[in-house]
Amino acid sequence: MTPKIMIILGSGSDIAIAEKSMKILEKLEIPYSLKIASAHRTPDLVREIVIQGTNAGIEVFIGIAGLAAHLPGAIAAYTPRPVIGVPVDVKTGGVDALESIVQMPYPSPIATVGIDRGDNAAILAAQFIGLHDDEIRQKIINLRKNYALKVKNSNEEIIQKIE
Amino acid sequence: MTPKIMIILGSGSDIAIAEKSMKILEKLEIPYSLKIASAHRTPDLVREIVIQGTNAGIEVFIGIAGLAAHLPGAIAAYTPRPVIGVPVDVKTGGVDALESIVQMPYPSPIATVGIDRGDNAAILAAQFIGLHDDEIRQKIINLRKNYALKVKNSNEEIIQKIE
Amino acid sequence: MTPKIMIILGSGSDIAIAEKSMKILEKLEIPYSLKIASAHRTPDLVREIVIQGTNAGIEVFIGIAGLAAHLPGAIAAYTPRPVIGVPVDVKTGGVDALESIVQMPYPSPIATVGIDRGDNAAILAAQFIGLHDDEIRQKIINLRKNYALKVKNSNEEIIQKIE
Amino acid sequence: MTPKIMIILGSGSDIAIAEKSMKILEKLEIPYSLKIASAHRTPDLVREIVIQGTNAGIEVFIGIAGLAAHLPGAIAAYTPRPVIGVPVDVKTGGVDALESIVQMPYPSPIATVGIDRGDNAAILAAQFIGLHDDEIRQKIINLRKNYALKVKNSNEEIIQKIE
Amino acid sequence: MTPKIMIILGSGSDIAIAEKSMKILEKLEIPYSLKIASAHRTPDLVREIVIQGTNAGIEVFIGIAGLAAHLPGAIAAYTPRPVIGVPVDVKTGGVDALESIVQMPYPSPIATVGIDRGDNAAILAAQFIGLHDDEIRQKIINLRKNYALKVKNSNEEIIQKIE
Amino acid sequence: MTPKIMIILGSGSDIAIAEKSMKILEKLEIPYSLKIASAHRTPDLVREIVIQGTNAGIEVFIGIAGLAAHLPGAIAAYTPRPVIGVPVDVKTGGVDALESIVQMPYPSPIATVGIDRGDNAAILAAQFIGLHDDEIRQKIINLRKNYALKVKNSNEEIIQKIE
Amino acid sequence: MTPKIMIILGSGSDIAIAEKSMKILEKLEIPYSLKIASAHRTPDLVREIVIQGTNAGIEVFIGIAGLAAHLPGAIAAYTPRPVIGVPVDVKTGGVDALESIVQMPYPSPIATVGIDRGDNAAILAAQFIGLHDDEIRQKIINLRKNYALKVKNSNEEIIQKIE
Amino acid sequence: MTPKIMIILGSGSDIAIAEKSMKILEKLEIPYSLKIASAHRTPDLVREIVIQGTNAGIEVFIGIAGLAAHLPGAIAAYTPRPVIGVPVDVKTGGVDALESIVQMPYPSPIATVGIDRGDNAAILAAQFIGLHDDEIRQKIINLRKNYALKVKNSNEEIIQKIE
Repeated sequence: MTPKIMIILGSGSDIAIAEKSMKILEKLEIPYSLKIASAHRTPDLVREIVIQGTNAGIEVFIGIAGLAAHLPGAIAAYTPRPVIGVPVDVKTGGVDALESIVQMPYPSPIATVGIDRGDNAAILAAQFIGLHDDEIRQKIINLRKNYALKVKNSNEEIIQKIE
Repeated sequence: MTPKIMIILGSGSDIAIAEKSMKILEKLEIPYSLKIASAHRTPDLVREIVIQGTNAGIEVFIGIAGLAAHLPGAIAAYTPRPVIGVPVDVKTGGVDALESIVQMPYPSPIATVGIDRGDNAAILAAQFIGLHDDEIRQKIINLRKNYALKVKNSNEEIIQKIE
Repeated sequence: MTPKIMIILGSGSDIAIAEKSMKILEKLEIPYSLKIASAHRTPDLVREIVIQGTNAGIEVFIGIAGLAAHLPGAIAAYTPRPVIGVPVDVKTGGVDALESIVQMPYPSPIATVGIDRGDNAAILAAQFIGLHDDEIRQKIINLRKNYALKVKNSNEEIIQKIE
Repeated sequence: MTPKIMIILGSGSDIAIAEKSMKILEKLEIPYSLKIASAHRTPDLVREIVIQGTNAGIEVFIGIAGLAAHLPGAIAAYTPRPVIGVPVDVKTGGVDALESIVQMPYPSPIATVGIDRGDNAAILAAQFIGLHDDEIRQKIINLRKNYALKVKNSNEEIIQKIE
Repeated sequence: MTPKIMIILGSGSDIAIAEKSMKILEKLEIPYSLKIASAHRTPDLVREIVIQGTNAGIEVFIGIAGLAAHLPGAIAAYTPRPVIGVPVDVKTGGVDALESIVQMPYPSPIATVGIDRGDNAAILAAQFIGLHDDEIRQKIINLRKNYALKVKNSNEEIIQKIE
Repeated sequence: MTPKIMIILGSGSDIAIAEKSMKILEKLEIPYSLKIASAHRTPDLVREIVIQGTNAGIEVFIGIAGLAAHLPGAIAAYTPRPVIGVPVDVKTGGVDALESIVQMPYPSPIATVGIDRGDNAAILAAQFIGLHDDEIRQKIINLRKNYALKVKNSNEEIIQKIE
Repeated sequence: MTPKIMIILGSGSDIAIAEKSMKILEKLEIPYSLKIASAHRTPDLVREIVIQGTNAGIEVFIGIAGLAAHLPGAIAAYTPRPVIGVPVDVKTGGVDALESIVQMPYPSPIATVGIDRGDNAAILAAQFIGLHDDEIRQKIINLRKNYALKVKNSNEEIIQKIE
Repeated sequence: MTPKIMIILGSGSDIAIAEKSMKILEKLEIPYSLKIASAHRTPDLVREIVIQGTNAGIEVFIGIAGLAAHLPGAIAAYTPRPVIGVPVDVKTGGVDALESIVQMPYPSPIATVGIDRGDNAAILAAQFIGLHDDEIRQKIINLRKNYALKVKNSNEEIIQKIE
């Protein structure tokens, strides 16, 4: 199936965060592709895969990076599609990456999620696609309902334990 | 016209940041509605307008709040639609609001933009809608092209001045 | 016995912090109930248990949460009773949760205690109830006296060791 | 009338923050007293007024201080009554005072409110007293209802303006 | 004369910081060129002027940017020449820009100077060129000697005043 | 021998930091005493031992504490002698304790050393006493010379290894 | 009279902070000298005046500096006398200077006071000298008593106003 | 061969960071020397080796230090050559060292790289020398190309795994 989401990693060492995204996208059955491309070390590769991806129908890009995390901004420079940024905790508790991603100037926003939150990046991407894809929107609603149920159930389990 | 975007302010005092969003949305000719509702002082109002808005066809919500900025998260609790959060600088340079918005747990992401960046929230919202609305996507591409041109021109003006 | 204090956890993963509260409340023989309810994933559950709890005579609520820690604020939105917030260290050393809890706007204060300080939340809750319950107030005075004695004794033990 | 709340200022220069508390307490018609006493410069005065205040029936203490803000902790050392701490922004955006107040060790909690939030300290104090004083509890409920109404009204005013 | 240093501004609004650099370079009589090009809004322009500049003999690039300050990193992606980064204080006291510039990954360093320190960027650039240009090295030595003399003289002036 | 320095620990759990001070004071043969006393849990004990210590000839006090670290300030409130503060890293990397100690208001300074630096507190105390005790001053000079020699020697060892 | 204290400023622009020190030292009638010398721009001048000052009987050095504030550490490198450091708020709220001064390694402590606290540096210096000079110690005791009285009086004035 | 780069460590305990630099310099075949010298404990040694090194033809100095990291600044005080600073993470995540190095005043810049980034310091030093040494410049270009290739290859490996 043609991927709708492209996950780009700034470095192979951030793969664990990407796997959080992949796990959710597979649960939601949304096809995606995964790339490694560095804004600083392979800028032309970033340019190429983003332009190609946009042309090939990628709807949302997810950029995952730590430290001076420029990858999401570099993606946004080459596509009109929304870009989600995931700051990775490598140093300073991930605050360096968070500020490098979220503080983008006008008119180049990055939809930033929490530090190391590959899972939420996938949910957010699905929400964007869900704006015009009723099936995916329904899947998110179900996923959230199930998670809410899980919270409620964990509740009951604890009450039973302490009573 | 039926609004596609709902901007919710946590407090009337954050109106200047909302106006940055409104200015861009008007430029892009995307209909929006504006509400004031506080996650802490009028939680049922937040719940009501978000559920009603979702049912009435709002595609994207923008929550603007400072301090312990819970509004975007409170919006996300009642809609499967994507929610954009704008942290406002009231105290601690806006870092309190930024962390209150961006660090959302699974599965409740907020698409966070930079501190006081109402303008970028509007661009991001337009990008979401542009996924299925070619006219809006084209408008964003044009807006970005014009801004890029403006950057290039400012360049030439400076070169002329110093030569 | 009818509980006087309700401890609400934003997530089952924060149970270790709640156990610090429970241990103190049991020592002070103050009846409490424990719930798990997420401000973002089960907002109606938060609303329901807080309103029911308030009606059933809960005097103090303790909200325990990490990251974008909105739970204490969400509790405060539905009860006139005092709400104590405990920021949990999940990321950024717990500073994200601290700022998300303490920086509440007017007129919705959260009585915030230190990062991971479930024990102090219990002491504070007991102090509130002690305002009209002489027995509990006396128990706190005794607990503090015993702890002061423990500090003084640890003192003597060290002096003996080094002399 | 016998004061139920004692506001203690670490320095006369923090009077503007105390006035925020006083304004709310006057609105709620809760009698209070106001003192200036420094934890570092007049420790015996702090000790004396806190012990005397406790004996005279003060139910809640509010300590207001900036910088290395030890005053709320110093108050707590001499009373079993709950102590509310208000960090004042003098340097570092008030973060120094916030951390000096909120990070209290076991078993000496301070009910900490936001930076410069004298108003919320008064609300919180009223909530404590409202646990056993139905009239005050009703007044807080009314104050909150009025404020919620004000939020809703500001909403309508804005809608009128932009339509 | 052929410029040896290229100063690139991420935005026309940072011109005051560039002028600090220009003032020093003029004092040292080192020819430079000035450009405005945004890493996010005109990425191809950055690419073009950096590649052209490198080919035309630019020895050192100075990138000046605030917020999510990716410009110096974007420059470094297209040249083997050393790149100096100047973080500009727009929000959060400039800490966001500092972390966005200094925390670059291997093997793409940015020679980062202090917040708003356009002057020091010029000195540093001159030091690089001074490695093979004796005249410039001598000029830096003189500039530093004169400044040291100024410090010593300000000393004497003060001593005279207070004696 | 009559102790010249009194080390006070806010909690028995900070003993490892005190041991760094004790090790240096023993090396310098300066008699000291060690106490545990909490500013919040045993305020009268702090008062008592500081007043008694001052009367008994203690020249310098060292206060060691983490979190909302009020102990050094509490010591300073009861003695005209210089007080050294050692912030301990318990939470937030020790920054909470550092700001709680160093940001003291006029006229109550604490001579603050680095986070967890019990060793430097001892050196500093010895420097104070060395102002009128030639023997101790000479011992510090020797300790510093030996340490400088150690640095120089470690230098040579490395050069040998890599050549 | 021979100065007992030497105040060294890293830059003439920090003179306002030095004047806070001077005002207190004049009140305490302790002779001092004032110098400007930069650790980076005039290192040999720092070395020279510190060694000469130590030989001439200076008992305490006060180093006042902002930004990467190395001056107090540079002074400490050349004297066995205690060195007090005053971080100046130039950028980042003075946190850069605070961390540059307080985090000194073993065995080179700086007695660090609060940001911009030239006044407390003078008090601390006087406390050191007061260890062997009864007259100065008595003057500090009096200064503190007067200040405590001032706090108490400001108290009474406020009580009169609000009653 | 005559060394072109001198790496100076503030303490033997930072050797792991220096080894990152050494590994890269050996790969680039640039001769270097390694020294340990502390700005605070052996200031005259720093002075001596920097002046001697400059006279002996050292082109670039790399200063590696943690905490109150004054070493790079101390090196810069004695040479007109460019100085690279590497902040080491010892406490506060290395932010103390970063601010101590990067925030240097005019006209004494330090070319600061990321926290613990000994590798990038070596690349940067090579870039400086590459300004006049074509062979070294070519080696950096090759090293960067190889690294870019490695990024691209890691890309393909991942795609193979997940397809």
